[in-house]
Amino acid sequence: MKYSKLLIPTLREAPKDADTASSKLMIRSGMIRKIAAGLYDWLPLGLRVLKKVEQIVREEMNRADAQEVWLPTVQPRELWEETGRWQVYGKELLRFKDRKDTEFCYAPTAEEIITDLVRKDVHSYKQLPVYLYQFGSKFRDEIRPRFGVMRAREFYMKDCYSFHATESDAETYYGRMIEAYKNIFTRCGLKFRPVDADSGAIGGNFSHEFMVLAETGEDEIISCDACGYASNKEKHLKSFPEGAEVKVGDACPKCKSGKLIISRGIEVGHCFKLGTKYSAAMKAHFLDEKGVSAPFIMGCYGIGVSRVVASAIEQNHDENGILWPNAIAPYQIVIIPTNYEDAKIKEWADKLYSEFQALGLDVLLDERSERAGVKFKDADLIGIPFRVTLGEKGMAKGAAEIKPRAAKQFQEVPLDQVLPEVKKFFGL
Amino acid sequence: MKYSKLLIPTLREAPKDADTASSKLMIRSGMIRKIAAGLYDWLPLGLRVLKKVEQIVREEMNRADAQEVWLPTVQPRELWEETGRWQVYGKELLRFKDRKDTEFCYAPTAEEIITDLVRKDVHSYKQLPVYLYQFGSKFRDEIRPRFGVMRAREFYMKDCYSFHATESDAETYYGRMIEAYKNIFTRCGLKFRPVDADSGAIGGNFSHEFMVLAETGEDEIISCDACGYASNKEKHLKSFPEGAEVKVGDACPKCKSGKLIISRGIEVGHCFKLGTKYSAAMKAHFLDEKGVSAPFIMGCYGIGVSRVVASAIEQNHDENGILWPNAIAPYQIVIIPTNYEDAKIKEWADKLYSEFQALGLDVLLDERSERAGVKFKDADLIGIPFRVTLGEKGMAKGAAEIKPRAAKQFQEVPLDQVLPEVKKFFGL
Repeated sequence: MKYSKLLIPTLREAPKDADTASSKLMIRSGMIRKIAAGLYDWLPLGLRVLKKVEQIVREEMNRADAQEVWLPTVQPRELWEETGRWQVYGKELLRFKDRKDTEFCYAPTAEEIITDLVRKDVHSYKQLPVYLYQFGSKFRDEIRPRFGVMRAREFYMKDCYSFHATESDAETYYGRMIEAYKNIFTRCGLKFRPVDADSGAIGGNFSHEFMVLAETGEDEIISCDACGYASNKEKHLKSFPEGAEVKVGDACPKCKSGKLIISRGIEVGHCFKLGTKYSAAMKAHFLDEKGVSAPFIMGCYGIGVSRVVASAIEQNHDENGILWPNAIAPYQIVIIPTNYEDAKIKEWADKLYSEFQALGLDVLLDERSERAGVKFKDADLIGIPFRVTLGEKGMAKGAAEIKPRAAKQFQEVPLDQVLPEVKKFFGL
Repeated sequence: MKYSKLLIPTLREAPKDADTASSKLMIRSGMIRKIAAGLYDWLPLGLRVLKKVEQIVREEMNRADAQEVWLPTVQPRELWEETGRWQVYGKELLRFKDRKDTEFCYAPTAEEIITDLVRKDVHSYKQLPVYLYQFGSKFRDEIRPRFGVMRAREFYMKDCYSFHATESDAETYYGRMIEAYKNIFTRCGLKFRPVDADSGAIGGNFSHEFMVLAETGEDEIISCDACGYASNKEKHLKSFPEGAEVKVGDACPKCKSGKLIISRGIEVGHCFKLGTKYSAAMKAHFLDEKGVSAPFIMGCYGIGVSRVVASAIEQNHDENGILWPNAIAPYQIVIIPTNYEDAKIKEWADKLYSEFQALGLDVLLDERSERAGVKFKDADLIGIPFRVTLGEKGMAKGAAEIKPRAAKQFQEVPLDQVLPEVKKFFGL
């Protein structure tokens, strides 16, 4: 893509109300714009990242045999009454009336509507298990929206729900989802940790939070340095001080002994084994092998897709801008001709552009008539993983400058070595 | 995909409140389920069709250099006050207050928010033109939601907006969009017609509706049988009776003479040349070549993606079910082993399944232990374009039965002729 064809309104300064590294950088790099408290436009660059995360999540959901559906964001009060959550949810649930004074809410999560769907069409153990997921807008009317899209009111989420005939089948699938989540965050190029967690307001039997590690994270993660087991449960690791030695029996299930370490994280996903909390309340029953009516055993598995984008930045940035992991970078490589009017530079820029595209890379060609310094600053701010510069001095001796975003210095290489170096960097 | 892994809850009868062929068939084929008036779940089969239409639309928008963005569905009253539409829009605009009593609406269209985005970041003619589009939920609080997803309250829409420095540039791009729309509906495999139309509530200079032709359509299309020119403007063809001969000067711009024919259609897309209606009201200005401040010249271009799905069914169905065009069929080919327990049948079913997938086809393998008649009925109802049946009698003599969905009779062919026949049918 040619830079001048894209709307990438970069800014030298972040607005004063941007309160975290990621929200500042997302606004400065032209990924998002704020509309009102907790409401954001996603611009072309931001949406490219969001869509890349979405596609990784989709592929891993499909691999786990989950089927994609799409459910309304506007949901009737009646369904939320059945589980009692219309009352329980508090002011975070955005409620409104339609023109006929019927009450609805903008769904912050979809247990009710999906349970309603399954109870209407699944009646026998022979039809089980069923795994359904969707992507879409969710709304939570946060009392204090902050941290940019990290704690926005309208956000983009993947929510998956599973329905089982037996506890053991539900637990087996829960394990598959944990593996799927590990694959997702690994593929996104993020350092993360699954944390044994309390179930909180969603309820159910047990749960795991997936935390992207970042010094700026809101949550404390207490983990064992030997086995990596992490927990935020009072009864588990939380009752030990940092540095304490724990042994078998001390609520550290995976290893014989280790030392506790405390780190910080940002919650980006949550898996819940729900049990029958929703199915029992909503009389969502099936006939089991013996012909006995029983409520579905359920699990639910969420990922805050828009939040993953922000957390990736919290984890990967420096004073100049973002450092995207390759897999979710809006563009993976940028070509910077210092002067695109120069015939020889243009020829090589266009040639490399085609060659990089042929490798399957997302290429940005910064053909603007800006000074080289401006282009470098924008490329660093936007966080493109690899940069190739074609300047007049270099071209005169048949050389280009290459620089991974994370490197301090560029390297001068002969023009015919650019492609091999790029292949090496991307493992192609 | 194996049939038993999918949630396809087909029904013999449609519910009583289903009021059109497409809504009946979408519910019977397990594509959608109704939640409340004008609110629908999209099940796996329905979503596959929706996503295929979406992808065709996305490709053609990208080809027209439009950039994808994602805007909040929840939008502040202030923006809608700037254009006066907060008052004008009436009860179709779903309004609500957040927990702090600030007023918002669920956007039925996005002119205000996109104009706000562009006025904040585009200030010079050098940055123009800008073309932005998005996919997402829209909400229109219809007084009488009906016709299934055709006139739902929450629906899935592509909306594109263009910003130009000059009238002529806006008109040139309008022409490109008309071509993009023709490509989209052609690629979807639909018979359609662009209709010269009034601008209605969106306003602006001129507009075209895109109509999918269907006997059950709500709208009357008056067109010339010679040049195909169609219009719903009073001053144009509407003032002539059906069968009337029209000549040059009689408001039929493309041909010398022709006869008027009346057909019916379903509106699935609408292009508007907006002019400065929104930009002037919202003081969305740029500096032109002479340094003079001027409002952007705008266009907007919508497609009701969920409506395209329903209209495709209105146009393509028979008494047994849906007849999908290949490009948007949820699966393109179904393999029906009459008895998947039979080793030889299973071997051939699996072999063909792999071979069809290798051709790039979306294959459904109906390996359920249902009677062949049930499988045939479901395949017809769902509307898979091509069916391959492997039965015991046929296998004994080395033959399979093949049948395009639209054909009255199946054809028996030697097993080794199945693949060539499939290639021929799909033009591969």
